[in-house]
Amino acid sequence: MKALCMKCGREREGMEIRCKCGGAFKIDVDIPFYKNVRDNFPYVKKWVSLGEWNTPLIRIEKFWYKLDLLNPTGSYKDRGSVTLISRLYQEGVKEISEDSSGNAGASIAAYGALAGMKVKIFVPSTARGGKLKQIQSYGAEVVKVEGSREEVAISAERSGAYYASHVLQPEFRDGIRSLAYEIVMNRQGKPPSQVFLPTSAGTLLLGVYEGFNHMLREGIIDEMPKIIAVQTEEVSPVCSKLKGKVYNPPVKFSSIADALVSTNPVLLDEMVNVLKETGDCVIVNEREIIDSWNYLRGKGLLVEYSSAVGLAGARKLGDEESVIVITGNGLKVL
Amino acid sequence: MKALCMKCGREREGMEIRCKCGGAFKIDVDIPFYKNVRDNFPYVKKWVSLGEWNTPLIRIEKFWYKLDLLNPTGSYKDRGSVTLISRLYQEGVKEISEDSSGNAGASIAAYGALAGMKVKIFVPSTARGGKLKQIQSYGAEVVKVEGSREEVAISAERSGAYYASHVLQPEFRDGIRSLAYEIVMNRQGKPPSQVFLPTSAGTLLLGVYEGFNHMLREGIIDEMPKIIAVQTEEVSPVCSKLKGKVYNPPVKFSSIADALVSTNPVLLDEMVNVLKETGDCVIVNEREIIDSWNYLRGKGLLVEYSSAVGLAGARKLGDEESVIVITGNGLKVL
Ligand SMILES: Cc1ncc(COP(=O)(O)O)c(C=O)c1O
Ligand SMILES: Cc1ncc(COP(=O)(O)O)c(C=O)c1O
Ligand SMILES: [Zn+2]
Ligand SMILES: [Zn+2]
Repeated sequence: MKALCMKCGREREGMEIRCKCGGAFKIDVDIPFYKNVRDNFPYVKKWVSLGEWNTPLIRIEKFWYKLDLLNPTGSYKDRGSVTLISRLYQEGVKEISEDSSGNAGASIAAYGALAGMKVKIFVPSTARGGKLKQIQSYGAEVVKVEGSREEVAISAERSGAYYASHVLQPEFRDGIRSLAYEIVMNRQGKPPSQVFLPTSAGTLLLGVYEGFNHMLREGIIDEMPKIIAVQTEEVSPVCSKLKGKVYNPPVKFSSIADALVSTNPVLLDEMVNVLKETGDCVIVNEREIIDSWNYLRGKGLLVEYSSAVGLAGARKLGDEESVIVITGNGLKVL
Repeated sequence: MKALCMKCGREREGMEIRCKCGGAFKIDVDIPFYKNVRDNFPYVKKWVSLGEWNTPLIRIEKFWYKLDLLNPTGSYKDRGSVTLISRLYQEGVKEISEDSSGNAGASIAAYGALAGMKVKIFVPSTARGGKLKQIQSYGAEVVKVEGSREEVAISAERSGAYYASHVLQPEFRDGIRSLAYEIVMNRQGKPPSQVFLPTSAGTLLLGVYEGFNHMLREGIIDEMPKIIAVQTEEVSPVCSKLKGKVYNPPVKFSSIADALVSTNPVLLDEMVNVLKETGDCVIVNEREIIDSWNYLRGKGLLVEYSSAVGLAGARKLGDEESVIVITGNGLKVL
């Protein structure tokens, strides 16, 4: 399987992070569909695994919930970390950097540790809380950077270590295909009507899309589920662009959905194209997020606020065959 | 499937918690073995499920690890809560009590919430921390009780609500059979040489034993794995009794393994009998627990200290075909 630039189509030569044109790469899924989910990732020869994937799909009242918070480090990010870190391990990479004070940082730190890599996680100087402690627990070096989110990313990229960016690395996004496969197989081959995804940088959305698209091409499903991106009022660049509205990022971020922070996502155009083809975008407010979070904890599901965003969206557009992906574990922010 | 008294053999008549003789009940596993794990629990007609069971078994260096910390509420207790609460739901129970400020309390609170029950969790007045917050998140009423651990239990039993004790209720212990089934099936039918279990009240140990024993009786495995109870220096009544030593509980509890607190377990004799038949017991000290915990987090596994106890035991007695059950998620105590 090759990796191709999403902007100009050029093939990735080695392990470079961006195309010469500045675009990000995407794995070209040119294989048959295999029922054994891991066989759909033939570039992984040896899995650096913490037992990720294969999460439960449960029904509570009106909707289906895919419990990706039950991945090893407590978020769906492990789906991408396992493919990325396994690949880097095979390439002999010994030292990696990443920028994230949240679930992606924790996930990369855990898998990097398992692979025996030296891991540096770059975070804004203001970062704190459970996820930062989790990152440190795995033995990663946390580097605090003054300045904007972009400046943190630049520091990570220029650190000297190999930049294992969860946003740019195609193997990270690609691992998230597994989520689409599992949803269909959890439902005995029947695709859901809609899949609700809290959306920020778009790795979840683009990865899930690739998975469903693969199954559609290979005749495993005969209809594409609608992919519904759910965003907060403060951070809604995807919904705004899709609906042709102007988006103004907040001067100061204050949403309770603190994992959804990409006001200017690198992969914005790619997300909008997917949603135009086969989905929609919906914005939810703080009250709706808190109501959804409270509903879930009252059903025995303690999730991240950012994950309750998915349910808040489904309450607006969902139906009986909708799947909501629960992306992160509330134990992190107890 | 009947429930029988473990002391006198009398059959449980209805939903009474203890036998007239004072003994606790045990489900009599008198059915064939079914490959579909849930079919081995025919008394559950409708599963009140949060997606429990089916946790990963992974290999890291010298040992196998069964990641029961990836159950929905973050501990192996969900294996027993699902069978107990499903049964109580079928019986029309609307209000339950339980005594535990830890994983059992959190698990019962979550499943009780899902079943729409009113849940009262009785805890020592000194209880605090992540697990208590978790219990409250699910909407359970937390009742603080002054006095000893026994006095907390008595308050829960006399609360007026149905006493859903994780220690006494046979359906709770019985749900833990699922763990033995999964370990064998994760290993393509091959039983492990040994299973290491952090041991306190003994529900884990007795449940796992019943599962393996069932498979042995039905010819699914042809050898019984050794069941190794691992205890701390402070809380080692099981090891002491097994080895014929006098056990003196600590005046003040101080072990880092704060989930292993049963200095005088109700099911002591039953545990010792199992270990005499097919296992052993090993005591680990604080240094060994911390070393094991540090080893695991350096491999990307953030576990409870009480769960690292299992590895500390395996480092003394384990071999290449040993399975260590990782019982609780470290995210709770970040
Ligand atoms: C809990 C949670 N949900 C959803 C998302 C959104 O995923 P993405 O950034 O891939 O759009 C994130 C991203 O950090 C997250 O941590
Ligand atoms: C994390 C953890 N491990 C192990 C145990 C021991 O289980 P048992 O009390 O069934 O012996 C407990 C019990 O609370 C626990 O919370
Ligand atoms: Zn390009
Ligand atoms: Zn009796």
